[in-house]
Amino acid sequence: MRTMGTMRTMGTINAPSVIPPDRSIEAALRDKIDNLNKPKGALGTLEELALQIGLVQQTLTPALRHPCHLLLGGDHGIEREGVSVSPREVTWQQMINFTRGGGGVNMFCRQHGFDLSIVDVGVDYDLSAYPAIINRKIARGTKNFLYEPAMSEEEYEQAIHVGIDLVNACHDKGCNIICIGEMGIGNTSPSSIWLSLLCNVPLDDCIGAGSGLNSEGINHKREVLQKAVKSYRNYSTYSTYSNYSDYSDYKKYQEILRYFGGFEMITAIGAMLRAAELHMLVMVDGFIMTACALGAVKLCPATKEYMIFGHCGDESAHKMMLEHLGAHPLLNLGLRLGEGTGALCAYPIIDSAVRMINEMNNFDNANITKYF
Amino acid sequence: MRTMGTMRTMGTINAPSVIPPDRSIEAALRDKIDNLNKPKGALGTLEELALQIGLVQQTLTPALRHPCHLLLGGDHGIEREGVSVSPREVTWQQMINFTRGGGGVNMFCRQHGFDLSIVDVGVDYDLSAYPAIINRKIARGTKNFLYEPAMSEEEYEQAIHVGIDLVNACHDKGCNIICIGEMGIGNTSPSSIWLSLLCNVPLDDCIGAGSGLNSEGINHKREVLQKAVKSYRNYSTYSTYSNYSDYSDYKKYQEILRYFGGFEMITAIGAMLRAAELHMLVMVDGFIMTACALGAVKLCPATKEYMIFGHCGDESAHKMMLEHLGAHPLLNLGLRLGEGTGALCAYPIIDSAVRMINEMNNFDNANITKYF
Repeated sequence: MRTMGTMRTMGTINAPSVIPPDRSIEAALRDKIDNLNKPKGALGTLEELALQIGLVQQTLTPALRHPCHLLLGGDHGIEREGVSVSPREVTWQQMINFTRGGGGVNMFCRQHGFDLSIVDVGVDYDLSAYPAIINRKIARGTKNFLYEPAMSEEEYEQAIHVGIDLVNACHDKGCNIICIGEMGIGNTSPSSIWLSLLCNVPLDDCIGAGSGLNSEGINHKREVLQKAVKSYRNYSTYSTYSNYSDYSDYKKYQEILRYFGGFEMITAIGAMLRAAELHMLVMVDGFIMTACALGAVKLCPATKEYMIFGHCGDESAHKMMLEHLGAHPLLNLGLRLGEGTGALCAYPIIDSAVRMINEMNNFDNANITKYF
Repeated sequence: MRTMGTMRTMGTINAPSVIPPDRSIEAALRDKIDNLNKPKGALGTLEELALQIGLVQQTLTPALRHPCHLLLGGDHGIEREGVSVSPREVTWQQMINFTRGGGGVNMFCRQHGFDLSIVDVGVDYDLSAYPAIINRKIARGTKNFLYEPAMSEEEYEQAIHVGIDLVNACHDKGCNIICIGEMGIGNTSPSSIWLSLLCNVPLDDCIGAGSGLNSEGINHKREVLQKAVKSYRNYSTYSTYSNYSDYSDYKKYQEILRYFGGFEMITAIGAMLRAAELHMLVMVDGFIMTACALGAVKLCPATKEYMIFGHCGDESAHKMMLEHLGAHPLLNLGLRLGEGTGALCAYPIIDSAVRMINEMNNFDNANITKYF
């Protein structure tokens, strides 16, 4: 599945070559935004977004072209431990439902004109009878990380490369803004552990109700995940000593991502890295996708500059991730559906920012006394 | 300008007949929303919005039709006291700019498909050469409320009726959702006083920087508004005793609105009341429009149930108004432009809520194991 083409563009798999946007255009962008006919700063976040998008696209007249949404599905071995309120079968059932247009993600994609790709990267069900689902299945679910790594190094690289391939395909269609969503029963568990291990946050503070556990369920989830982290510490070559070079930090992050992650999550990381490398905008959704953003930024910090964070709900673990990333999401509407819906819902605001910098008059051509 | 037609529909001017939506459909609406294929509550605010809209429209399949935006312009006598950073002429300059499509409001209306009406209800400039501006001018600006009431009782009623007429015209076009914005240099001053007098908040807590006053400017504004409120207390027949009947409460609120308000603000109140009476949705913008919403709700509490609050910025006085109204705005993007832009920016979220209840599958037709 790996192609030499993407390998060449990507550099080696261990070092994706994401560089920060060139800031030489920043002063001109700020000047243009400040001279639109409004009090300086009066369009708040839209002004910040316009600046970011202008930097990413290296132009004073940015544009959003052919927005694409990748809906990635995968199952999780850890689900066998009863850490989720929903049964595993919901993953494949929802994947099929998405092909019929009746899911939350379908509705938002239609509303905002996103080209939706539904991709099976690791669902524990034979979905080959559904041609609307792109088959990039790596395995039928990950292994149970309570006992062993969720995936092998080979599988990890394969997932990263599926992400690269998917973004390449969008880019080839003319897309310059990508959104990623997930469907994977059980994937709040790896997200919580990633936050804990990548950011040194006590595990207990990282665990929540997922899609609706009661307090007994949360306690059980806590116990399972604590046991899993303990057995990871025995396994890991990186977790027992503390002075790393940058390179071994990188290897350590990779190991954490691989040991606990889902195929849909690692694919998302590959997609984010590749999109940033191609100077595309990356829309980031809720808890799971922010965990992936965290992973991508740990592997390659400049990726952050290409990301627009769509939504923050009330989960404290999600808030911690965003804080760690220095991210300020556009919306807080109490959404917790996943599928990328929180990010999609924020798209019109990104569109508004682009329209603002292109369509609003400035004080000179509007013939208006400059406010101050 | 007053017509018997609107008078009949409206009831008497003193008692607009806004009634709360019939709640008998509520259980069926909740049931429909809870059975969409998502964990219960997982679409957060969208679910609350869908319920509200279903109640207002009395249907399980609500729709947004022909959205209209009223941009109301008027000048303020109090501006002569130097309470605003922007000069009076900016009002008419911006009104003309809006006819050319280059303002913030134009951009958002184009983006979200709103039919924009630019209406002069009290601009201190002859705009008759601009056919794109609807001429409903009541006077060239209000009087200076530091010395006398901003408008007469006649003018107040006239402004209310302009609002009624404007909404009737939208309704006749098939519109069932209306947004209102304003352009009026100086109109944060009456808004602050309304908050103080309508909600018994100390005036000092209600005064902010407007569109960019420095601390010296704010202090001056504070002094001017305090003096104005003092002279109002001498004028008023309602402010010196405290036991009112409901009816005299109503008269007192009217007097406060009339004494300090701008023509664009009273027109907005008339429009809000009439829209609610016609069971239309009313989108409420930032500080000034929330002050008008407050006025409308004081006159007729049921109006609140037809309102969707678009945006909350960082102004503490705006937050107090929202709290008083029990309102939870959809966005917080640091916008402070006025013109209705904060409300318009939130429109896609309202649209999402309507799409959700109409387009998402439920658990039965999606063939999905119900989550819990």
